[in-house]
Amino acid sequence: MPRKTEKSGKGDIPYSTVVRLAQYLRILERLHAVGTTKISSNELAKEAKVNSFLVRKDLSYFGEFGVRGVGYDLKSLIREIRRILGLNRDRRIVLVGVGHLGRALLSYKGFAEEGFVTCGLFDSDPAKIGSSVGDLQVRSIFSLEDFVQGNGPIDIGIIAVPAFSAQFVANKLVAVGVKGLLNFAPIPLTVPTHVISISVDLTTNLEVISYYLLHR
Amino acid sequence: MPRKTEKSGKGDIPYSTVVRLAQYLRILERLHAVGTTKISSNELAKEAKVNSFLVRKDLSYFGEFGVRGVGYDLKSLIREIRRILGLNRDRRIVLVGVGHLGRALLSYKGFAEEGFVTCGLFDSDPAKIGSSVGDLQVRSIFSLEDFVQGNGPIDIGIIAVPAFSAQFVANKLVAVGVKGLLNFAPIPLTVPTHVISISVDLTTNLEVISYYLLHR
Repeated sequence: MPRKTEKSGKGDIPYSTVVRLAQYLRILERLHAVGTTKISSNELAKEAKVNSFLVRKDLSYFGEFGVRGVGYDLKSLIREIRRILGLNRDRRIVLVGVGHLGRALLSYKGFAEEGFVTCGLFDSDPAKIGSSVGDLQVRSIFSLEDFVQGNGPIDIGIIAVPAFSAQFVANKLVAVGVKGLLNFAPIPLTVPTHVISISVDLTTNLEVISYYLLHR
Repeated sequence: MPRKTEKSGKGDIPYSTVVRLAQYLRILERLHAVGTTKISSNELAKEAKVNSFLVRKDLSYFGEFGVRGVGYDLKSLIREIRRILGLNRDRRIVLVGVGHLGRALLSYKGFAEEGFVTCGLFDSDPAKIGSSVGDLQVRSIFSLEDFVQGNGPIDIGIIAVPAFSAQFVANKLVAVGVKGLLNFAPIPLTVPTHVISISVDLTTNLEVISYYLLHR
């Protein structure tokens, strides 16, 4: 068993470390699924394309998981990272924008596997409102407040609407108490400081590929 | 004008620096669009949610763009990062998988704006082959080789197919000389070392939000 020194995890953990922890988790879960039981920081670093010093530094924010020379117990490390990321409980999600991107996200199995439960779909298009996608009915964005009152609080809102309506939707979500936003519209959102908002920029990945096409 | 010491940019630039350069570019272009002309590394760091030492370190790989105490000239910095990332030329793209995600990507304006030109659509579904999306006709994945022979080489293949066929599609793309892959299927791809492959993991972002919901 790895030695574990509990730390609070609050306060000064860099954003980039949190992002890498989620990336490490994906790698560890994949390795766990094929029967791996131990991993060294060097191996994890190689998989994550970062240096092993950084892996050890990232994990050290939360205490000592590993044993020098032996590496990390995969199962314990997965459990700890899941706890740190708050994945040891379900997160209630609503999706706003049931277009192509929204439907693609709904069919994405990874969300549900990590405990992200989609419990509401919203759109502003009268042609879509009332229709069903899977088990869920598409509701009017103007019924969001009623939905939350009837169905309980929402943790995260996924914004898959065009750029021109993304801020409007963000405001609506924040107004009903949603504290986490995942934004796919290609504009930055303005939100209160108590709300965490992450914008997914798909172009960035193409640019990274472009770099390597040039420099390899 | 900022002083510029040309460096080759080849070899030892960390992957994470390349990713951040693309992120800096997005921020800089947004600020440029609203009339900003100068930016300090502190300001850029704040926008990018990294520390300013890291910003200066990232940019120093490519020479000296900034002037101490004055900051960076926005337009020069954008031009330099675009050059570094190989964005000063068009990149020819094919999209494989014309489902919801594929269609969402096709309607995403950011790609074309950065010089990523979609020149072919492919699918394996007979119901889709022959149909048109925008100006482009959906072709059979089995006609990929003919397409490249008739239309010239492809720089980047975007894979928006289900997990079970992603590796098959990757192999097809690599076989016709594609050297960059952007994979949206939730499985890691095996590709030759001369090919750069990036997998987009949408769950990671939700997990980062989950962390901040817990620790804020």
